[in-house]
Amino acid sequence: MAKLTEISWNDFEALPLETKKPYLENPGLSDTPYHTLFAQQFDRHLLERLAALSNRIRFMAKSKEGSLYLKSLLPHKRAMLYFSQPSSRTFLSHLNACQILGLTTSSVRDSATSSEAKGESKTDTIRTFSSYVDMIIMRTPEKGLAEQMAWELSNSDRPIPIINAGSGKDQHPTQALLDIYTLLRSFETKGGLRNRTVTFCGDLLRGRTVRSLSYLLTNFENIRQVFVAPPQLQVPEDVLEILKEKGVSYAISDNLREAVTVSDAVYMTRIQDEWDKDKGESARIDTSRFKFGAEELKLLPKDGVILHPLPRRDEIAICCDHDPRAMYWRQMRNGMWIRAALIAMTFGFEKQIMCFGA
Amino acid sequence: MAKLTEISWNDFEALPLETKKPYLENPGLSDTPYHTLFAQQFDRHLLERLAALSNRIRFMAKSKEGSLYLKSLLPHKRAMLYFSQPSSRTFLSHLNACQILGLTTSSVRDSATSSEAKGESKTDTIRTFSSYVDMIIMRTPEKGLAEQMAWELSNSDRPIPIINAGSGKDQHPTQALLDIYTLLRSFETKGGLRNRTVTFCGDLLRGRTVRSLSYLLTNFENIRQVFVAPPQLQVPEDVLEILKEKGVSYAISDNLREAVTVSDAVYMTRIQDEWDKDKGESARIDTSRFKFGAEELKLLPKDGVILHPLPRRDEIAICCDHDPRAMYWRQMRNGMWIRAALIAMTFGFEKQIMCFGA
Amino acid sequence: MAKLTEISWNDFEALPLETKKPYLENPGLSDTPYHTLFAQQFDRHLLERLAALSNRIRFMAKSKEGSLYLKSLLPHKRAMLYFSQPSSRTFLSHLNACQILGLTTSSVRDSATSSEAKGESKTDTIRTFSSYVDMIIMRTPEKGLAEQMAWELSNSDRPIPIINAGSGKDQHPTQALLDIYTLLRSFETKGGLRNRTVTFCGDLLRGRTVRSLSYLLTNFENIRQVFVAPPQLQVPEDVLEILKEKGVSYAISDNLREAVTVSDAVYMTRIQDEWDKDKGESARIDTSRFKFGAEELKLLPKDGVILHPLPRRDEIAICCDHDPRAMYWRQMRNGMWIRAALIAMTFGFEKQIMCFGA
Repeated sequence: MAKLTEISWNDFEALPLETKKPYLENPGLSDTPYHTLFAQQFDRHLLERLAALSNRIRFMAKSKEGSLYLKSLLPHKRAMLYFSQPSSRTFLSHLNACQILGLTTSSVRDSATSSEAKGESKTDTIRTFSSYVDMIIMRTPEKGLAEQMAWELSNSDRPIPIINAGSGKDQHPTQALLDIYTLLRSFETKGGLRNRTVTFCGDLLRGRTVRSLSYLLTNFENIRQVFVAPPQLQVPEDVLEILKEKGVSYAISDNLREAVTVSDAVYMTRIQDEWDKDKGESARIDTSRFKFGAEELKLLPKDGVILHPLPRRDEIAICCDHDPRAMYWRQMRNGMWIRAALIAMTFGFEKQIMCFGA
Repeated sequence: MAKLTEISWNDFEALPLETKKPYLENPGLSDTPYHTLFAQQFDRHLLERLAALSNRIRFMAKSKEGSLYLKSLLPHKRAMLYFSQPSSRTFLSHLNACQILGLTTSSVRDSATSSEAKGESKTDTIRTFSSYVDMIIMRTPEKGLAEQMAWELSNSDRPIPIINAGSGKDQHPTQALLDIYTLLRSFETKGGLRNRTVTFCGDLLRGRTVRSLSYLLTNFENIRQVFVAPPQLQVPEDVLEILKEKGVSYAISDNLREAVTVSDAVYMTRIQDEWDKDKGESARIDTSRFKFGAEELKLLPKDGVILHPLPRRDEIAICCDHDPRAMYWRQMRNGMWIRAALIAMTFGFEKQIMCFGA
Repeated sequence: MAKLTEISWNDFEALPLETKKPYLENPGLSDTPYHTLFAQQFDRHLLERLAALSNRIRFMAKSKEGSLYLKSLLPHKRAMLYFSQPSSRTFLSHLNACQILGLTTSSVRDSATSSEAKGESKTDTIRTFSSYVDMIIMRTPEKGLAEQMAWELSNSDRPIPIINAGSGKDQHPTQALLDIYTLLRSFETKGGLRNRTVTFCGDLLRGRTVRSLSYLLTNFENIRQVFVAPPQLQVPEDVLEILKEKGVSYAISDNLREAVTVSDAVYMTRIQDEWDKDKGESARIDTSRFKFGAEELKLLPKDGVILHPLPRRDEIAICCDHDPRAMYWRQMRNGMWIRAALIAMTFGFEKQIMCFGA
């Protein structure tokens, strides 16, 4: 079995993403993540187990008895949320996920801690913080830092799991998990997540959400992907390369209304102008036809669903909020459930939760 | 019965404050607040029930057994403290109130969250945060935002209660509750809060404390109100209008010592120069005769009490702190007790707490 | 018995540090700290009791049963961490110590709270915060503020204990406790902390760590102290005065390698250039010979240990991290254990913990 303790950092870093999965598993539990670093760690079987566990936790949390049972699982463990990049929503979602399981939490949210000011390296800082707790949930702008800490801690006297809550531009695996979970829930009683058309719309070039979700969808049978965007913001070639390799059907379009009429799910995204190289670069692009409003709502099939990772600007009109097909508020809450499921699984409580009340 | 789900936002917003109370009640519980938005929601009966519940909680918290019972009430619920205006004291008071009841908390204290930077509306932000929790305690500079969120959440798939911890310049209902509770406690064994003279002194023009407390006092029998301030900072006309309407006796004065000699309670306030339109406007007012010191202490009747919402500057001399009639430190702590009582009541635990040990 | 309530603030402040101990004890418990303000409060007997209690807590925390027992001790109490000086590491260490014992926590970490902006005095601020909780753990830049608050609270209606987590330049007693605990643990199975040579290296002039640890070591039998530093950063005369007074053997040196070969413990420290009066003052000092690297590691006796209060820059090479004699990561974690022990002791749980499972 592949182990992080039996491979050097340089060798591990150089591996292709798809081959790192076994190194990140819990040595004591079969096919269960220990460190969560990449969307690529999650195959269909694991995604479905996570969704089932999330459903279970969500259901249990409705009763006081179930809630207290969940809170009784991890009160002897402590987690640290190390967020050196601001993000209220991802932070709060993870925090509440911990609280559901009774995990005690502490958090570091300043980018400039006093220790960095004193010349300490990031890895020393995180190693120090790790010495107080049993899990680190981290979000940082540095690409690869979560991965490096996972390797370092696994090779220390006191290994603890890392959950990557967003690192660099590329990886935000728990966002991808919540997107998939929302799709799985949306089609749960309607034949499941197969033979579907999923349309992505908005800024498909920048941001990590579309990239990861597109990848994870290839795990499911016959999911056609449609990419609707202004030409300047279309999905990058390497995403399409993966679809071709895997034989997944896809289309490129600039006509949202046309796409909506044949979509089972429409995944709207915001124009991410914070990545503009030129100031005003995004503002010069005509994005008026890439918004979901009353007209699009009429065209959407009655079993279709609308998703959005939020925050939104005006990509989705407020008049859509009360439509039963609008899933984006529920999607937020799903993020909390699937993160709770992931943490529970990481600490080896999957079976115990699934058997509750049985 | 009046329901927020059966009235439009515009119609609700336009109602006179005094008529909004029934809309804010818990539909499942008679005469019990669900959303707490205005001091005007609280009538004498409800104030006395809250005070009784606060007394009970305060008493129970003295023993480990009682404390643990209180903590066992709401461990399955989570509250969010959304404070986009800085306020350590109100924040900590609510936080500790939650902790007394076992509520798990998370907090957002930055005014500029990353999502607002990304162009998200305040209501989307709060709606998102609401998706993780079972109650929102919020303080914002925007007038009416708490009210709007209460309406929106009550009209969503997942209604949760809102507690207004200060919004805009006007409303800070839990401060008014703690002031009343302190007066009720102060006279509990001395014949109760009736036939009393309450003197307000300091900056009576600006700030919301005096305004709300003056209003709530009209609920009690024969409470004479005396307003002592420099002419430029006297109590605004609309506050006096309400007293006239309700037939409450009052007086306007600029002589603190004279007022103190006949007062049962003296409510001191700070000059709120942060509201100055002209820089130095307040500094030009002679406030030297509106401070409570050793002389005033001698004049105060032996059963009289001194209150202050704190923070203070020099309105009350430090030499008064050890006098048994100084209630302002206890007043702080009362804030925590009455907030715990309010939260417990909101979640329907009033009866259960009142019956503890019976 | 000496009591804070029977001495004025001015008289108490004027006492020599070594004579303040009895005033800071818990009146109901023999030889047990109530307020923790100075390293000088801790004599050998108390240090050994604290170390034994830390060992016990550390051991118990390994099992879910033991952890839950510890968490059951103080769930009815609430602590406030008032850190007006930034310090992630000391903050997190105390926070997690509280969590181990089930204490609920709240924190104030801004140096500029709104109340100070409104003209409130520091002592009023802390007094207010104290009204919500059962213990205050505080770190402030103001010398003596922790001591003053301890006196004030002990003389109020509602005394609660204060733990000084760093005040001014001089006192940081819990850091000294964790250093001693790490030494005690390091030599626990090797004959104990006696007849040892402890070498201090780096910036011995500034910073409070070396000063306090040197003092506490005088409590133990035959501990020789060696001070290795560039002449400009050598240990201050008053530290040596104390050693002379107590008849402790010591040496001054500028040769780290020579010292290492005869050391049982090497305590490395960072050049604290944040205290430079002249910008660049430290940079002009040749510190190249005061770093611990591969060469020094070879010279260190096989039972020797390396300590560092962290954060480090390059005083200890990363290649030393995996050596079994490197104690600095464990030292961090020891900080959490001894703080948990101190808090448990302050609240009177020493015996109960020591008897667990017996």
